Amino acid sequence: VSETNQLARVEAYSDGVFAIAATLLVLEIKVPSLGVHAPAAELLNAVRALWPSYLAFVIGFTTILIMWVSHHTAIRMLNKASKRFLYANGVLLLVITFIPFPTALLARYIDTELASVVVAFYSMVAVLLNVAFILWNAAMQRPVYLVKPEISRERLEKFKRQSWGSLLLSIVTTAVSWWFPMVGLGLIIAAFVFWIIAVPVGDTAER
Amino acid sequence: VSETNQLARVEAYSDGVFAIAATLLVLEIKVPSLGVHAPAAELLNAVRALWPSYLAFVIGFTTILIMWVSHHTAIRMLNKASKRFLYANGVLLLVITFIPFPTALLARYIDTELASVVVAFYSMVAVLLNVAFILWNAAMQRPVYLVKPEISRERLEKFKRQSWGSLLLSIVTTAVSWWFPMVGLGLIIAAFVFWIIAVPVGDTAER
Amino acid sequence: VSETNQLARVEAYSDGVFAIAATLLVLEIKVPSLGVHAPAAELLNAVRALWPSYLAFVIGFTTILIMWVSHHTAIRMLNKASKRFLYANGVLLLVITFIPFPTALLARYIDTELASVVVAFYSMVAVLLNVAFILWNAAMQRPVYLVKPEISRERLEKFKRQSWGSLLLSIVTTAVSWWFPMVGLGLIIAAFVFWIIAVPVGDTAER
Amino acid sequence: VSETNQLARVEAYSDGVFAIAATLLVLEIKVPSLGVHAPAAELLNAVRALWPSYLAFVIGFTTILIMWVSHHTAIRMLNKASKRFLYANGVLLLVITFIPFPTALLARYIDTELASVVVAFYSMVAVLLNVAFILWNAAMQRPVYLVKPEISRERLEKFKRQSWGSLLLSIVTTAVSWWFPMVGLGLIIAAFVFWIIAVPVGDTAER
Repeated sequence: VSETNQLARVEAYSDGVFAIAATLLVLEIKVPSLGVHAPAAELLNAVRALWPSYLAFVIGFTTILIMWVSHHTAIRMLNKASKRFLYANGVLLLVITFIPFPTALLARYIDTELASVVVAFYSMVAVLLNVAFILWNAAMQRPVYLVKPEISRERLEKFKRQSWGSLLLSIVTTAVSWWFPMVGLGLIIAAFVFWIIAVPVGDTAER
Repeated sequence: VSETNQLARVEAYSDGVFAIAATLLVLEIKVPSLGVHAPAAELLNAVRALWPSYLAFVIGFTTILIMWVSHHTAIRMLNKASKRFLYANGVLLLVITFIPFPTALLARYIDTELASVVVAFYSMVAVLLNVAFILWNAAMQRPVYLVKPEISRERLEKFKRQSWGSLLLSIVTTAVSWWFPMVGLGLIIAAFVFWIIAVPVGDTAER
Repeated sequence: VSETNQLARVEAYSDGVFAIAATLLVLEIKVPSLGVHAPAAELLNAVRALWPSYLAFVIGFTTILIMWVSHHTAIRMLNKASKRFLYANGVLLLVITFIPFPTALLARYIDTELASVVVAFYSMVAVLLNVAFILWNAAMQRPVYLVKPEISRERLEKFKRQSWGSLLLSIVTTAVSWWFPMVGLGLIIAAFVFWIIAVPVGDTAER
Repeated sequence: VSETNQLARVEAYSDGVFAIAATLLVLEIKVPSLGVHAPAAELLNAVRALWPSYLAFVIGFTTILIMWVSHHTAIRMLNKASKRFLYANGVLLLVITFIPFPTALLARYIDTELASVVVAFYSMVAVLLNVAFILWNAAMQRPVYLVKPEISRERLEKFKRQSWGSLLLSIVTTAVSWWFPMVGLGLIIAAFVFWIIAVPVGDTAER
């Protein structure tokens, strides 16, 4: 019971950070400032012209949601925590917390000639996120083995391969974005589809 | 126990998002900027003149509160989660997280000639919210049936009918708001009353 | 178990709102903007000149903390929730969520001639908070009696008397603040001391 | 069970505050404002020039993470709460909540001649944090002894010595920072390493 409680608090703190990071993204969508006698069409256009903000919002939210699902899936494989695991979790949360910044950059510059810089920067943060996720996964197995005995080796190996695949994809995306930012954006969305389809979710893997 | 825990974490993450989205609304109420030697009456007037912000704050908060109660009621009918349900829940939370933006638009323009645009935009987000809620409800029953066996078919059907009724009302509200924004605002408030009265709450339905 | 879970989720959502409202207060403390070659003494003075922000921060935080402790104490007397209780809880949280705004007003004008307006406004919000708390308490006993059978009538009566006493005090404070804002401020702090000393805390009442 | 629940809610509220304070730090990293036709190199430089913000973000986040781990470790030694403990916990959270402000100061002035003021201010807040932590620890043992009987006296004594050591270090850091801000910064980071290495984590102390 005591061990479970400890993991429960790690989950509670992590859930808080995931939820807040995801929700703060909306603060980047700024209300357009018009004169009160402006015609309705002008406000409509201004609200439509915010599409880069909406797009960035959805991308940032989806990134955090997918990491939350993966965090949730992985932590349910454990039956205890270690000190190293707690700090590795902290590093993962540090990167999650940072995501509103590249998202805000994306919102601001995606429809300009500077798109390549901001898509590449976003992908670079995705690289960091993947690295943090891999370290976090490693901390589950070393120096203490925290994983429940009933979790099969193959499942852990598959999870690991997927994480490395995702890291590789984010590195490629960073490089590509410099020359073809829209291709980079497409790869970011492709990575979402990959995670959503490929990664099993908690106890519901078989469904 | 394990299944319950999984739902518990979905609830914890969702609660976090609901609570933060509701609380961020207050950031849109801006402190009026006066000279330090301004007469007291001027500050009083400035604080009173913020009524559109207060109104928008209450509307945004009530929207999120009602969705929280409905989320709470519905999730208590389940005894497990599926992958599709987790992502449908993510989409629902995405729309919840977005609510501070239409709320801020409302606060800024409700007392101007642009009221029709912002009430219609708010209602359009309510349409999205209802669609997300209906998809989320559908994910509870397909492809896996996640609902507890003791929940009656009639109860599920009633819940579904109410959701579709609410969707219809929000579509009507969006259309009406273009010509009569104040009628649209009245319909938004009528929808709150409908949800509060009609929708049963968790295990306390009979009371 | 099921009933307890329902209350648990009400607590989780409420805790989220309390925690966020308290934490958002810090956003009102603005970093002073100086030239990079300004002497150290100037930045020191600027940081010291923010004392109204620090004071408002502590007042807002303490208000929310005391309400959290009272919420915590009261909710532990229950063994189930009702629909009316859930919405009364929503109204209480609405007022809690609003607190960063009067706090920001306090921070901005407490050291000016407009102090009377902002202290009175803060007290008026405290009046609303007390009213919401009394309604919330009433919803615990009507129309369904949600309180655990082992909780004595005297305890409930005492809690009620204290809430009405606190309401009265906040009304007096609002009136007094118009003429003597510093006395009003003193009464706000006196109310904190009253709550901290007089109100028992959860199961630890006797200590 | 009831006692445990009370501690569980203290943990939930505290986790919320820790998580939000940590996540709000990112709001201080401001998107650089460039013309849409600016060359890519200019945006890259602007993003690189934000290193003081990134550094401050990591320092603030690590401070909060370490306090969360220590809070987590300490609260798991308890089997009940007292009124004094609840309020001591409130004071600790007040200081945690304040951290985004000295962090924002750090981000703004660390690379200027005013570094000494902001590093000293950050260290001074660390002094307050250590004092609040020591008071919070004291409230665990007086007037009621809340600690589980199986926790050894030596463990409590060691925890106490470490807290006093950390307080002393933060006082020294504050003083040193006035003359040598970069040495002060080094000492802040040294304190992190000290806490991470020296302080045992929950039930995982021996690992």
